[in-house]
Amino acid sequence: MSVTETYQVTGMTCGHCVSAVVAELGKVPGVREVHVALKPGEASAVSIASDAPLDPSTVREAVDEAGYDIAP
Amino acid sequence: MSVTETYQVTGMTCGHCVSAVVAELGKVPGVREVHVALKPGEASAVSIASDAPLDPSTVREAVDEAGYDIAP
Repeated sequence: MSVTETYQVTGMTCGHCVSAVVAELGKVPGVREVHVALKPGEASAVSIASDAPLDPSTVREAVDEAGYDIAP
Repeated sequence: MSVTETYQVTGMTCGHCVSAVVAELGKVPGVREVHVALKPGEASAVSIASDAPLDPSTVREAVDEAGYDIAP
């Protein structure tokens, strides 16, 4: 089984930000793949493919750990 | 002896960019201190304190290695 969910993440401005978010989300158990559509100055779409649906609070914590926020 | 020179560097958008530039310039022999005044969307002032005047091409190479450019 594979699930893909997309979150809007604010505050990302460059490739380093993308790397930081991908690195943190990649540590979450069950995550297979992370893709970021960077939009500096706007919310960036972060898609996460996982074996099973993720707990949104786990995703939020990983994004927060990287230094960014999920758009409300 | 200590010299401080300031360069205008383009393309830096966030703290990760600052870290990358500081890390590369910190490797240049003679560099004592690097300070970056980040201005996303504009050129950022990068001040470099060193034991003796640096070869501008060495500075340019370090900034380039970090992925940025010195403004003409």
